[in-house]
Amino acid sequence: MRSINIRDVAKHCRISVSTVSRVLNDRPDVNPETRKRVLDAIAELDYIPNNSARNLVMTASDRIAVVVRGVANPFFAQMIRVIEEEIHRAGYTVDLHQIASDADEVHTAAELATEKRLCGVLFLGGRFNYTAEEMRVLSVPFVCASYTNTFGNLPQGAFSSVAIDDSAEACRAVEYLISLGHRRIAAIVASESDRSISELRYLGYRRALEKHGIPYEPALVVESGSFSQRSAANGTNRLLDRCADFTAVFTIADMMALAVMKVLHERGVRVPEDCSVIGIDGLDCSAYSIPTLTTVVQPAEDMARESAAILIDLVRGHGENRHKVFEAHIREGGSVRRL
Amino acid sequence: MRSINIRDVAKHCRISVSTVSRVLNDRPDVNPETRKRVLDAIAELDYIPNNSARNLVMTASDRIAVVVRGVANPFFAQMIRVIEEEIHRAGYTVDLHQIASDADEVHTAAELATEKRLCGVLFLGGRFNYTAEEMRVLSVPFVCASYTNTFGNLPQGAFSSVAIDDSAEACRAVEYLISLGHRRIAAIVASESDRSISELRYLGYRRALEKHGIPYEPALVVESGSFSQRSAANGTNRLLDRCADFTAVFTIADMMALAVMKVLHERGVRVPEDCSVIGIDGLDCSAYSIPTLTTVVQPAEDMARESAAILIDLVRGHGENRHKVFEAHIREGGSVRRL
Repeated sequence: MRSINIRDVAKHCRISVSTVSRVLNDRPDVNPETRKRVLDAIAELDYIPNNSARNLVMTASDRIAVVVRGVANPFFAQMIRVIEEEIHRAGYTVDLHQIASDADEVHTAAELATEKRLCGVLFLGGRFNYTAEEMRVLSVPFVCASYTNTFGNLPQGAFSSVAIDDSAEACRAVEYLISLGHRRIAAIVASESDRSISELRYLGYRRALEKHGIPYEPALVVESGSFSQRSAANGTNRLLDRCADFTAVFTIADMMALAVMKVLHERGVRVPEDCSVIGIDGLDCSAYSIPTLTTVVQPAEDMARESAAILIDLVRGHGENRHKVFEAHIREGGSVRRL
Repeated sequence: MRSINIRDVAKHCRISVSTVSRVLNDRPDVNPETRKRVLDAIAELDYIPNNSARNLVMTASDRIAVVVRGVANPFFAQMIRVIEEEIHRAGYTVDLHQIASDADEVHTAAELATEKRLCGVLFLGGRFNYTAEEMRVLSVPFVCASYTNTFGNLPQGAFSSVAIDDSAEACRAVEYLISLGHRRIAAIVASESDRSISELRYLGYRRALEKHGIPYEPALVVESGSFSQRSAANGTNRLLDRCADFTAVFTIADMMALAVMKVLHERGVRVPEDCSVIGIDGLDCSAYSIPTLTTVVQPAEDMARESAAILIDLVRGHGENRHKVFEAHIREGGSVRRL
């Protein structure tokens, strides 16, 4: 007769293997009744947990992957710290993977889930156009942190997300410039049509102009091709070379805005006297630029905490998928002036 | 009779369990003769690898922890990307842990090594004063990346390191200022005596003054207490409040130097006209500050690649512990002027 294993205990109790494992490992996140049932079953079945099986199951049940898209994004760096703290505090381990901005996070996560038997995935940055079909490869709960599935057909009930309303917050930034008298507002975006954060923020720019009856001028918009400082600097040079007339630049990210200010300065355009600049993110370091960057601040720590909390609930089988939209706010610096 | 397990196969071949595991998992990093011996032994012993055992051993043998000390350090962010790439490329998995600057990386690593049966640890940032006694808790090979054990009694043969010579490079920065005619040079350091990177860079500052016969003035040195931009900004305010007379500020890190420039600017001290500023690190983003920061550039990518290469060699049992010191170089910006 083969020996009793942890799966037999789980089947006997009609609970998951990972719950049995949590009891064996003396974890706090098991309700007392379940714990008693498991311990009774162990006695009844004469099951002897061995270290190998225990470790095996621990590996299977306690590991959450954090897949970070866009390698050196300081906004994500601010979130990662809090996400790790929260996940560790809940008794799970973190497997962190950074992938390039052009890599596919779903593919990465699906591979990890198979190879390492994850219990959940937290995506820090990702595409906004998941389809129901492609997400079938991922059989564990997941949370989209800092973005949501605006363009895809994946049903809301099939995933969780924590984000700001990127389009509305970009609109807020541009309307702030408009409220100070600016009407000729340039925009440096990574892409107008990447089906992702850049497109959404670009659409917010368009919406603000439209709301205030300001005609859209293609000559005032530059697609830099990426979120890097180098590409934002190149984009600013192209904008200036067009000799277009503008009094402000809206940029879709703080790091890009710092590079925009640098190029304007180098080319003799004073910020904010000759040109105002506004960013989005609210990075700590953009408070130390000269001049201090005016920016739309995302509540990074709250978003990180909420992302981890939702995922842990899902992993534990508490609650349904949910979607949380945080509100951002403008941090006034010295890079924007009233006309 | 108990069944044959992977350990029996390893014992039979007089090789490690992890090598047998690599053969079972069809990894490329096994020499062909060893592979043949393992396959012969499997046939001879009638060993049937089962998935659970295989997974169990995989987990035990292929996991490298990267322990990052100092949570949002962008210098480490630049290194992490390359380290992860190199480790993955070699067929190992990465378990990344970020710990606070005041946390103990050895304790964290020892816990991880026990809980997760790591095959190696890469410390990204850490203390410079390991003792042979305390490091006994860590039974896997480890590499100190971006620092080395200057102050401890741990024998050189017991660990590996990849670093710049922090004291010599700080001396280089200050001598650069001296070569441009500066003699009254202030210093913003985290600590003069933290037995770590700040102390080493502070000692380099002292050495440069001494080499050039410039008297040391305590009033020109501020201990900010940490590497944060906020603490560097506070330290700069204290320095200015002393009404000390200086023509340049040496700062031990780029992010701190950006905060120093910010406070000088806010208090009406022009950089570089009234005061020069130099940093150490060579971050990408400090090329976009206004003015561009003059800094001592650490070769982050080369250091990252070498750290991963050394650790992978050690994990595979090739080669001994080794110590690599990289040379830095000055990147001239606009924050330093000739007197």
